[in-house]
Amino acid sequence: MVNFSVDKSKSTPLYIQIFNQFKKYIENGSIPPGYKLPTIRSLAKELGVNNVTVINAYRLLEANGYIDKKVGSGTYVSETVRQSDVSIEDIKALEHGQILVNKNMINFSSSSPNPELFPVDDFKVIINKVLERDGGYAFEYQDTKGYMPLRKVIAEFIKKDEVNIDFEDVQIISGGQQGIDVVSKALVNFGDCVLVESPTYSWAIASFKSRGAEIVDIELEKDGINIDALEEKLKIFKPKLIYTMPVFQNPTGISYSVEKMKRLIEIAYKYDTYIVEDDFSNELNFSNNKHLPLKAYDKYDRVIYIKSFSKIYMPGLRLGFILSPKNLINSFAEAKYVTDLSTSGLMQRAFEIYLREGMWEKHVERFKKIMRNRFDEMKRLLADNSYFEINIPDGGFYFWLKLKKNISAKLIYLKCIERNVSIVPGSIFFSNKIDDSHIRLSYASCEADKIRKGILTIEEVIKDIDEAGNSEYIPIV
Amino acid sequence: MVNFSVDKSKSTPLYIQIFNQFKKYIENGSIPPGYKLPTIRSLAKELGVNNVTVINAYRLLEANGYIDKKVGSGTYVSETVRQSDVSIEDIKALEHGQILVNKNMINFSSSSPNPELFPVDDFKVIINKVLERDGGYAFEYQDTKGYMPLRKVIAEFIKKDEVNIDFEDVQIISGGQQGIDVVSKALVNFGDCVLVESPTYSWAIASFKSRGAEIVDIELEKDGINIDALEEKLKIFKPKLIYTMPVFQNPTGISYSVEKMKRLIEIAYKYDTYIVEDDFSNELNFSNNKHLPLKAYDKYDRVIYIKSFSKIYMPGLRLGFILSPKNLINSFAEAKYVTDLSTSGLMQRAFEIYLREGMWEKHVERFKKIMRNRFDEMKRLLADNSYFEINIPDGGFYFWLKLKKNISAKLIYLKCIERNVSIVPGSIFFSNKIDDSHIRLSYASCEADKIRKGILTIEEVIKDIDEAGNSEYIPIV
Repeated sequence: MVNFSVDKSKSTPLYIQIFNQFKKYIENGSIPPGYKLPTIRSLAKELGVNNVTVINAYRLLEANGYIDKKVGSGTYVSETVRQSDVSIEDIKALEHGQILVNKNMINFSSSSPNPELFPVDDFKVIINKVLERDGGYAFEYQDTKGYMPLRKVIAEFIKKDEVNIDFEDVQIISGGQQGIDVVSKALVNFGDCVLVESPTYSWAIASFKSRGAEIVDIELEKDGINIDALEEKLKIFKPKLIYTMPVFQNPTGISYSVEKMKRLIEIAYKYDTYIVEDDFSNELNFSNNKHLPLKAYDKYDRVIYIKSFSKIYMPGLRLGFILSPKNLINSFAEAKYVTDLSTSGLMQRAFEIYLREGMWEKHVERFKKIMRNRFDEMKRLLADNSYFEINIPDGGFYFWLKLKKNISAKLIYLKCIERNVSIVPGSIFFSNKIDDSHIRLSYASCEADKIRKGILTIEEVIKDIDEAGNSEYIPIV
Repeated sequence: MVNFSVDKSKSTPLYIQIFNQFKKYIENGSIPPGYKLPTIRSLAKELGVNNVTVINAYRLLEANGYIDKKVGSGTYVSETVRQSDVSIEDIKALEHGQILVNKNMINFSSSSPNPELFPVDDFKVIINKVLERDGGYAFEYQDTKGYMPLRKVIAEFIKKDEVNIDFEDVQIISGGQQGIDVVSKALVNFGDCVLVESPTYSWAIASFKSRGAEIVDIELEKDGINIDALEEKLKIFKPKLIYTMPVFQNPTGISYSVEKMKRLIEIAYKYDTYIVEDDFSNELNFSNNKHLPLKAYDKYDRVIYIKSFSKIYMPGLRLGFILSPKNLINSFAEAKYVTDLSTSGLMQRAFEIYLREGMWEKHVERFKKIMRNRFDEMKRLLADNSYFEINIPDGGFYFWLKLKKNISAKLIYLKCIERNVSIVPGSIFFSNKIDDSHIRLSYASCEADKIRKGILTIEEVIKDIDEAGNSEYIPIV
């Protein structure tokens, strides 16, 4: 049916060569779902490679959802593997947030508030203050680790979250995505393994994959990652990193219990790996449950804490920071240098004043008030909704909906675009992209009336699809 | 004497495993210079691998300067391999430009002009204009490819250099180093080969190495890269990229002749590879020889042109652009997205006005006048100098000096620091780091009197070392 071969003169490892061939054949349908794979021994013999090479290839196929092992029976191509209905380009475009979302749309896909809410006037005053005070020095190359006074203010600032850190372990970055990229560069090399929550933020996966990493995902439960499953994978894969969003996770809105946070740290220590904590919204707590960051419990110096100011403050600031374990800070600085030498000195100097003078707290207070109205409205409309199952989060930007009926989330996404409502289908948050039963909504850029109108539209779309039957719709991609 | 082994279960390719072991043994002296390596066949047999695996490992060792082939006689550990006298940390610190250079030093290592020369007042007016005009929209996420009006203005702007490009092929980046990083991410994967000029900019090499690339260097002649040597290497290594600085190269100051530019483009086309052109100073031409960028001759769409505004304008702006071959622009956009989503919208909007309103040309004119005085002064002092051989460049920031006497450049560097003069030893510009006979000077941040004083100090240092004899000095590292 299909032929496999390996080329030992190539620099690509043999197990990756085998993996890539299976992947291609499974994706293009040459090997169908349910097909039984050759035994390890027979394939190894056929290709003239070690058994362990085939084992590694199969392991990787399994980790990526292409095959399933059935105990005592063999290994089979997964029944759930199938071609995506929507082109990856469309979904990427959606994530970029600029192409399929025009200004007239009801935008539930973006977690950025409308720009009218940004504290521009305050910031303007401060920028001018900096330019008057520092002149050209505001435009010099900044130290790679960051503008020293800002690093000091951050070490103070983070005490509110019960995190104690030396300012020397603070690395300034140009936003959260760059934090992920810098950590990847410093720690992840070709063939390394990275564990991620499932579902998770797709551009973190993209960053790890860009380094040649294997991605292995771990189921996310209502109170955080499945620790037993995690421990199993830690034993097998010996990952360089575990990538997490412990508070108001993207896309699920889930926050870890304190107990799970503590267990996660113990287990990272036990298996000698690091945890990346990606925090972009922990200020946005609308409940009475306190959610400290994982870093607050980090007694073994195992947590790499990445903070973005983009979502709570202004995306265009391009500013954030890493709180680094002591032994990694110089690796991060070197990776940052390779990436872009340093972050804009002007923005760092301005934000230093902003934090130091307490303007941040005032902004967060104002911001939370506005967001709370929107959050409450969306929560009201989605709780006890007949179309979705949902766990109401304690805060953050995201509502993660499971469709009660067996209707394609990607189809809902496409039909919603036609009716000027932008949502995110859940598949992009899974490393194998095969989920089609979830959608993610964010309320951040919509006022209450738009939220009502948008949810109503989604419900109508689902009703229409349900009545017509899935088959009548041919996705136009 | 030493043992070699390979582990086929590892994901690291076998030839890299062999390379790494040789590298380690050569560097720590276990295998001495002049040592004859085993034949390919015998080592392959001993390790149980294919001949081609050993050939690849030896090829890589040769490309990195660890071994030399002698025709008809065998392969030997290079006589010129030796331990660096100065710790790489010190040199890195120097390149970072912040640690070993304090404000009281005469700074010949930095190519940034003193911040008093930055056009801050102009820029302040413009930033305020943008904030008034655009409000919060200046702080939204910007499109990953960049702020559209800026991309359009750049496509116009670059016509002055006889480059015609569609604005859709312009990718905005946060400075030149990010340009290199983004191009690396898009095109260079583990095990790929990248050709570079020798000597070259060390943080470009760091970026390619961070992607797991093999670096192969090609000798730079007075009128550009050695095209015959290049063609040889193209045949053998099939590189993804050739990284070049065709005008006022760093560190040599060399500019390519038009003929070499044209041949370089022909050859890239013939061997189906791309040329990265890194341009940070082509405005700074003090001669009557016109130097168009390589991109102006790019009839096959083979040149990836990276422009930084950091050196001519202000480093803290963190702004630059890539002019991309048509078929690569989307790959660059995706790599940019993984890197940091987008570049600061505020800076992009401000710079759009700056370019559009012709303030750039005025700045360049003013800037050149000041730099020319400094350039001329350094040129006057270095031409016909008894300590150095030098090719006076047509412009740019760098003078590249070859020491006439056999004195360690690294030692001069260390002794100069003691006397408050900061220079860059040439070794860091070579991929194997073993050169010790060159130094790089930049005049950009020193006024004429400081230039005189600094050169005098360097001459004194050389004289002292020469009289004392190298042996009396023990580098303090």
